[in-house]
Amino acid sequence: MAVNVCWVLIVLQALLVVLFAVYVRYEDNYDAMKYPLFQDIHVMLFVGFGFLMSFLKRYGFSSVGFTLLLASCIIQWAMLCQGFARLDDDYKIRMGIVSVYKADIAAGVILISTGAVLGRVSLMQLIAMGFLETVVYCINLHLGSEVLRAIDAGGSMFVHVFGAYFGLSVSIVIERTNNADASDEISLRTSNYSSDLFAMIGTLFLWLYWPSFNAVDLTGAEQQRAIINTYLSLAACCVLSFACSILTDNDKKLDMMHVQNATLAGGVAIGAVAGILKQPWVAVVIGSLAGIISVLGYAKLMPILETNFRLYDTCGVHNLHGMPGLLASVASAVIVGVTSETGPPDSLYQDLPGMNSSSDSRALKANLSVFGARKAGEQAGYQIAALTLTMTMAVIGGAITGKLYTG
Amino acid sequence: MAVNVCWVLIVLQALLVVLFAVYVRYEDNYDAMKYPLFQDIHVMLFVGFGFLMSFLKRYGFSSVGFTLLLASCIIQWAMLCQGFARLDDDYKIRMGIVSVYKADIAAGVILISTGAVLGRVSLMQLIAMGFLETVVYCINLHLGSEVLRAIDAGGSMFVHVFGAYFGLSVSIVIERTNNADASDEISLRTSNYSSDLFAMIGTLFLWLYWPSFNAVDLTGAEQQRAIINTYLSLAACCVLSFACSILTDNDKKLDMMHVQNATLAGGVAIGAVAGILKQPWVAVVIGSLAGIISVLGYAKLMPILETNFRLYDTCGVHNLHGMPGLLASVASAVIVGVTSETGPPDSLYQDLPGMNSSSDSRALKANLSVFGARKAGEQAGYQIAALTLTMTMAVIGGAITGKLYTG
Amino acid sequence: MAVNVCWVLIVLQALLVVLFAVYVRYEDNYDAMKYPLFQDIHVMLFVGFGFLMSFLKRYGFSSVGFTLLLASCIIQWAMLCQGFARLDDDYKIRMGIVSVYKADIAAGVILISTGAVLGRVSLMQLIAMGFLETVVYCINLHLGSEVLRAIDAGGSMFVHVFGAYFGLSVSIVIERTNNADASDEISLRTSNYSSDLFAMIGTLFLWLYWPSFNAVDLTGAEQQRAIINTYLSLAACCVLSFACSILTDNDKKLDMMHVQNATLAGGVAIGAVAGILKQPWVAVVIGSLAGIISVLGYAKLMPILETNFRLYDTCGVHNLHGMPGLLASVASAVIVGVTSETGPPDSLYQDLPGMNSSSDSRALKANLSVFGARKAGEQAGYQIAALTLTMTMAVIGGAITGKLYTG
Repeated sequence: MAVNVCWVLIVLQALLVVLFAVYVRYEDNYDAMKYPLFQDIHVMLFVGFGFLMSFLKRYGFSSVGFTLLLASCIIQWAMLCQGFARLDDDYKIRMGIVSVYKADIAAGVILISTGAVLGRVSLMQLIAMGFLETVVYCINLHLGSEVLRAIDAGGSMFVHVFGAYFGLSVSIVIERTNNADASDEISLRTSNYSSDLFAMIGTLFLWLYWPSFNAVDLTGAEQQRAIINTYLSLAACCVLSFACSILTDNDKKLDMMHVQNATLAGGVAIGAVAGILKQPWVAVVIGSLAGIISVLGYAKLMPILETNFRLYDTCGVHNLHGMPGLLASVASAVIVGVTSETGPPDSLYQDLPGMNSSSDSRALKANLSVFGARKAGEQAGYQIAALTLTMTMAVIGGAITGKLYTG
Repeated sequence: MAVNVCWVLIVLQALLVVLFAVYVRYEDNYDAMKYPLFQDIHVMLFVGFGFLMSFLKRYGFSSVGFTLLLASCIIQWAMLCQGFARLDDDYKIRMGIVSVYKADIAAGVILISTGAVLGRVSLMQLIAMGFLETVVYCINLHLGSEVLRAIDAGGSMFVHVFGAYFGLSVSIVIERTNNADASDEISLRTSNYSSDLFAMIGTLFLWLYWPSFNAVDLTGAEQQRAIINTYLSLAACCVLSFACSILTDNDKKLDMMHVQNATLAGGVAIGAVAGILKQPWVAVVIGSLAGIISVLGYAKLMPILETNFRLYDTCGVHNLHGMPGLLASVASAVIVGVTSETGPPDSLYQDLPGMNSSSDSRALKANLSVFGARKAGEQAGYQIAALTLTMTMAVIGGAITGKLYTG
Repeated sequence: MAVNVCWVLIVLQALLVVLFAVYVRYEDNYDAMKYPLFQDIHVMLFVGFGFLMSFLKRYGFSSVGFTLLLASCIIQWAMLCQGFARLDDDYKIRMGIVSVYKADIAAGVILISTGAVLGRVSLMQLIAMGFLETVVYCINLHLGSEVLRAIDAGGSMFVHVFGAYFGLSVSIVIERTNNADASDEISLRTSNYSSDLFAMIGTLFLWLYWPSFNAVDLTGAEQQRAIINTYLSLAACCVLSFACSILTDNDKKLDMMHVQNATLAGGVAIGAVAGILKQPWVAVVIGSLAGIISVLGYAKLMPILETNFRLYDTCGVHNLHGMPGLLASVASAVIVGVTSETGPPDSLYQDLPGMNSSSDSRALKANLSVFGARKAGEQAGYQIAALTLTMTMAVIGGAITGKLYTG
């Protein structure tokens, strides 16, 4: 960390003070029930991501420390960016508990992208990427959830797909102009006994609190379903990822990286439909598929991408966030599509008891539209449209960011 | 972990999908206030148990990883087993937040038993034990709480006594046919500086969140008492277990295993009466006794059981769960027995403000019965009956499981 | 830990049982919404403080273990001390969830003081200090919040300033009669890679749950502001402490001790005004200043105090709790002072929506008085009076405690 980074941080923080002074005020409404869920997400972000990346023996302390620094910058910036999208009549941003967990989630997006390039870019580059990516993330989120009104309560598309492909796009661009030896890149990924246990602290807190992440925007029966669907998906994902890890290994041994990462893919894959899915067994199936896809990604696809395409992905975010996010997006289109709003009581997707609540969640608004103006098949199309938009924004945004680095 | 375990896991997961598809649907009622307590229990199960067992230097990563795998299987299976005990009119299981924390608690029982045999059975055997034990646990819980209507809000009997003696029974049976050298068994228990600190992560999260475990089934003033009684019992237990650890040590040094385990015995010992006990000082006394008993168990009784009876107990679950659970059971009979329903305002056990609430907790139902049909002395008898039933089910269930391994 | 400490602990625990039996009963009112916030504070106390001090390589396990032991003693004693200040008509202490988190906070004060002397006093001395200091803390808290009615929701004065200067006062007195070599004292402070990562577990859980600490006594919009002001202050503090750590270092490298400690100073510095501050940007400024002050304290002031004044401070509590607490106290006087109760809607400090709630929080009572009898400038004077009182009580209390040690 060089001296010029320090001055950049100080100037950025001063700018943030000015923007807060001009634009940000407090809201008086307070939904105290959201606070414990926010704290779970807060732990996921700082303990979860921080320690998960500490499996990199050479980056143990750095990954925890830099996660803290980077996320501390981004949460302030994200509050502003998200606030500008919904200014009050007096051109002020009203900030409440919702702003806070949404800021945490935005910082999570940046940490996902960071996972793709960790160890190969400087802290200054990470900070630049963070500020830029937050803007693109907010625009994409606004278009996807407010304009296309796609259903994505757990952020499978807007958080995981976006963060993963943005980071991968940065990674592939910087490698084009990087002469480092491939073996160097891969050697980053060495761990030891102690660093593997520290990483498990990250894994467990992500795994345990993921239901809060997928449910925080919802209320009532919808929130309960989001919690339990996520819980089931993660349990099934865990069983399948252990099994597949051994079956795909040449020596039939468990790969630590699979245990630390692939076990979490179930949380990503169920995110989009966590609140609306009324059949628990479907959550179990989606979680199982996510575990299989994620382990195959680590074991089979990643080496091919590295050797054939020079696509390096330090923490394997493509396997943990990218592909399970794609699975979630497709699953959301299928589930919405096969559901008739006049279906039988046990249809996958039906009128929701939570619909009468006062929640203004994105998912709920989207649901209302489904049962209002849109037909089921139509909504399925909008899910795919939102995925397409997200992929496009992420890849182009990442490529531009990467270009800025390499000049 | 051999290849055949993988296929067993995959087949089991497929069977679980089928059972979920046929039987499990969501409930619409949602008690959002239970969610933060569930999350505390969730952390106890995965971070608490996982890291607590990581004191075994040779099993550090395995204990965290296998806890995750084993519990992920069992929570799905326990949801089904517990659901079958209370099918809806349409032969479906209605699943809500209560099902989820009850599934976590069931997985906790299996992890307690695992502590007794860890390092001496294969993963396949652990999985077999888990599925079998869950069934016996659910039957015993149903008989004890619904038929005998014993008071046991914190599961001192149904969780801790059951889990400990089931595991010990498995342990003693497999040792009968095992030719391994005794010193081998004990050498498992080596730790080092770093593994001791990782284990303290487990200890602390169990210690801190134990009030949630004992209080989750309760509401109102009864929940508040359960929280504070548990808090006080654990604090007193901690003080006594430090003091006794040094007094019982030949070199007058603190034994790490006591700090990691015996400090928790207060949570077990107060469990049965946590909600009904109205005199905080009794909680302090019970916690103190639990600390003494647990340290004496580790320091004096365990070596005798090992050398004289070949009863090996890897993590000392007899000292942490078994004996403190027995203390709790006896204490519950005494406290219920000395209490008259027409006693003075400061009697140990009296009419409960929480009684008018809409809670359908086991403890409350039992309480109602005490002040309804049953006399205090009569209820004391039922407490002892529930303990006898639990011990019998655990020992026989464990012996049969052990026989299956060796036979 | 010598044998006589064990007997002292056993006798103390027996005395606590007697006092609980005579004085303590349960309250029936239960505010279930406070429970998750209490659990956050509980984690801060035991995981946060315990692991934060484990950066001392030679004291890793001890710091976690002794934190557990010491806090377990003090929480019981603090419940009694705080209860005696508000006995019921029947001379009983009524205990509820509020008593429990207040006991945790009192134990936090003792752990702050412990940080100043860790490694240089015996466990017996720590226990003696703990019991004595708790009494002085309760008297000061009562005088400051009930008599002077100072605003200090997050305990910047009553917890952090008091704890830090009490410990420093003990430290300076024992050094006067201590012939140990100065280099010995400083050599305590060696860490290694693994102990630094364990310490980050402590840092992160303190950092993440600090909003709960500052907000637990409040309700409604005031609680929401306390949460978000703390969140923003900590984020800004983190950015500035990273930047300043490098700028002040001779080799332009990041100092682990700054990352582990100075990042937290924002939580201390915003504590006093967390609930009343209506302008988020002020929280960002206060947090930034706290980060700068704390790093300068570690990097520049501490070596001077050590070499010139023989004032040793093992964990640097002066930099983390002392000076940021002074900043908070001065800031609270300024913010209260510049605010008119008839000010414009965007004044820093104005009529509070939470004022009509049924909360009996210290801060709220103080606020009511401000808008009742007291003028803004007058309240500013009382803030400074409370700070003066707290400093005096802490320094004299600590000096007497230190004298008792040295005979």
